[in-house]
Amino acid sequence: MTELARRVLDGDPRALARAATAIENRSAAAESLLKELFPHTGRASIIGITGAPGAGKSTLTDRLVHELRREDKRVGVLAVDPTSPYTGGAFLGDRIRMLSHHADPGVFIRSMATRGHLGGLAAATTDMALLLDAAGKEVVLIETVGVGQDEVEIAKLADVTVVVLVPGMGDDVQAIKAGIMEIADVFVINKSDQPGPDRLEREILALQSLSTRHDGWVPPLVRTVATEGQGVAETLAAMRSFLALAGAKDRAVANWSLRLREMLRERLLEQFANIDFQAAAAEVAARRSDPYTIIDAWTKQFQH
Amino acid sequence: MTELARRVLDGDPRALARAATAIENRSAAAESLLKELFPHTGRASIIGITGAPGAGKSTLTDRLVHELRREDKRVGVLAVDPTSPYTGGAFLGDRIRMLSHHADPGVFIRSMATRGHLGGLAAATTDMALLLDAAGKEVVLIETVGVGQDEVEIAKLADVTVVVLVPGMGDDVQAIKAGIMEIADVFVINKSDQPGPDRLEREILALQSLSTRHDGWVPPLVRTVATEGQGVAETLAAMRSFLALAGAKDRAVANWSLRLREMLRERLLEQFANIDFQAAAAEVAARRSDPYTIIDAWTKQFQH
Repeated sequence: MTELARRVLDGDPRALARAATAIENRSAAAESLLKELFPHTGRASIIGITGAPGAGKSTLTDRLVHELRREDKRVGVLAVDPTSPYTGGAFLGDRIRMLSHHADPGVFIRSMATRGHLGGLAAATTDMALLLDAAGKEVVLIETVGVGQDEVEIAKLADVTVVVLVPGMGDDVQAIKAGIMEIADVFVINKSDQPGPDRLEREILALQSLSTRHDGWVPPLVRTVATEGQGVAETLAAMRSFLALAGAKDRAVANWSLRLREMLRERLLEQFANIDFQAAAAEVAARRSDPYTIIDAWTKQFQH
Repeated sequence: MTELARRVLDGDPRALARAATAIENRSAAAESLLKELFPHTGRASIIGITGAPGAGKSTLTDRLVHELRREDKRVGVLAVDPTSPYTGGAFLGDRIRMLSHHADPGVFIRSMATRGHLGGLAAATTDMALLLDAAGKEVVLIETVGVGQDEVEIAKLADVTVVVLVPGMGDDVQAIKAGIMEIADVFVINKSDQPGPDRLEREILALQSLSTRHDGWVPPLVRTVATEGQGVAETLAAMRSFLALAGAKDRAVANWSLRLREMLRERLLEQFANIDFQAAAAEVAARRSDPYTIIDAWTKQFQH
């Protein structure tokens, strides 16, 4: 075992930070490190937190960290924002309160914000969660900042996925549009002191009545006012109910099946990242080439 | 040029049927035939028709065919149903009225209903549309029977996409959920003699107000009662407005870019179709193997 791997397993924060940077940079050392660490993973609960922008996900995440620290749990936080090449603006503002945890060696916080990351953000997030797991974090919170398809994919890779909504016109429709309703194991109605939580609750229940989940689980609705700390313990309890009932082993296999698909997909996309689809499309549209010849050439290129 | 290709280009219905079967079976001859035919394509308008089950898509398609035949246009119809291995039940019932066109050599109708088709249904539908185009069909209608992600992908490959909705509780939500709102170039509110078309129209307008299309087009709303033939000519006019204004060349390049991505994606999925993700996931979940070694092995296997 390498020195870095040993120190990560010991929970050394500096080794952890160095390993995280190696994973972010997709350095050659990162994959062999992850192979070394992998047998020591599988103990952390991975919690995905997603929802519409402005729903208060960062505040809720912060409060969950406080609650978990009160229980003396070791916590990792990954804030995923594929929409910006760096962490800035309103997002940074939201993050500032997380700085309170920076002095706490029991909490490790990392922003993951590089779209077009080699190997893809879903793979990188999976890798980072495994690293934190190996380093002894008992809970890893993955907070997605945006609400696009990428973020939904990432939140879906968690052991339990929390969808945060807020009362008020439009947000509900937005949430439905992005397809995040289907992935919720727990619904949080945040800012529930604002007008309209009853209506939002009725809409969620109406959507739930349209279909039944394979596992029979009916995602509970928890009302919170995260800024006041209201409902945070209840959110944690709802997640734990799901984790306890979900059948940990089946869930782990189902999640790995999903993650392996994502990892394979991203590996393939990476291989084809240099393709100029627009240029090829112009050739085909002008009938200077045909699509069959082009697809053949692309896949042959991959094979060599 | 092969005899079959020449006869297809002449519009011989029996040659067309034989070529269509070759494409469906992915016979070795199909791809070389399509390469031969490809330079003779690009003249047909490809119309995608999608929407919630029971919205009356088949009836509308039938009426559009009647209208186009009155103009003496040569028409092809592809009915895509990935949800069933064969065409049956209610769907067949809907199809029966299409039999009226079977005696008409100006109309060619084909059901495409094989999920798990080698090379995928989107690729097969693209190929079939190209065949009909080469055979001199001036309009090709692609009607998707279901409303899942596959059907949305297929409808998106058309030159103009029509989304058919019906008034009444729940349908609107369903349509939004399936993500079909974003792909509409024309909205049809069918069965508009039933209660609620005003409400549905307001909901569509509200959704439209949330975002602007890149091309600046605002999809028009057409009210129809397809069973009575009401609004059918208006639907056709709305499609033609879009086709006229869309900038045919840009649209063709954009569509081919999308189709090439789909074709590449399906070719790759085909290569990896024999992977047992569940078995691999069980190995990983039990920590008997690690995901990095597995992904490496899969991609190496493809390369040889």
